[in-house]
Amino acid sequence: MDDCIFCKIVKGEIPSFKVYEDDRVYAFADINPVSEGHTLIIPKAHAENLGEIAEADLMAIHRVSQKMYQAMRSALGADGVALVQANGKAVNQVVMHYHLHLIPRKNSESRLSVTSWELVPGDMDAIKVTSEKLAAVL
Amino acid sequence: MDDCIFCKIVKGEIPSFKVYEDDRVYAFADINPVSEGHTLIIPKAHAENLGEIAEADLMAIHRVSQKMYQAMRSALGADGVALVQANGKAVNQVVMHYHLHLIPRKNSESRLSVTSWELVPGDMDAIKVTSEKLAAVL
Repeated sequence: MDDCIFCKIVKGEIPSFKVYEDDRVYAFADINPVSEGHTLIIPKAHAENLGEIAEADLMAIHRVSQKMYQAMRSALGADGVALVQANGKAVNQVVMHYHLHLIPRKNSESRLSVTSWELVPGDMDAIKVTSEKLAAVL
Repeated sequence: MDDCIFCKIVKGEIPSFKVYEDDRVYAFADINPVSEGHTLIIPKAHAENLGEIAEADLMAIHRVSQKMYQAMRSALGADGVALVQANGKAVNQVVMHYHLHLIPRKNSESRLSVTSWELVPGDMDAIKVTSEKLAAVL
């Protein structure tokens, strides 16, 4: 897409710190990093979100995520890696081109808020009803 | 694994609200939901994290995540869906069996903190060095 910042990064029209590239996938540093090594993996073909991305591109991205996890462990000494992928402005997707965040963390770094939430028990009857709604269309 | 709560859920030894199941994958409601419809997708075969999971199981999980995204849109009226997957206690993985969170949100619900973080520009020289370290092992 002409006005998509990530498409421009893929084409080299906007500079980026490239970490990995293959036929389907481009990976580069997030320049607003939550932690050292925060990396984005995107499909080269424009797709807004998980609903639009071609299955082959999604598979390629997650194959690369496994390699990236190992690279973050071995090259950066990460003790853990969080993966986050937002679909829609309703969950704070900022750039409307599918992107998978890989956020490494060493034990010595400050706590990651993105994967920390308070565990509050839900209403079991409500959860049952909602689960049945989902199961019915799957 | 004998003492793994998610393995016990897969085997039916601990009850769960099942949303989907196939040969490789089991999906069920998170009973401490961040939002209505919060669902976990796990591999039936025990694997602690992204480093351990078999590629075929990882692919199966992400194929199901695409269906689940559509189901959350159509059956629950979700405006957006956040995916979160934590690897390691360093990023607050609580159950040590790989699990992908799918967290739907309607615009009318309260804001999701998990995918909302302040965008703070990083140190470009440091990002360059870190990106080169990762690229070198990929």
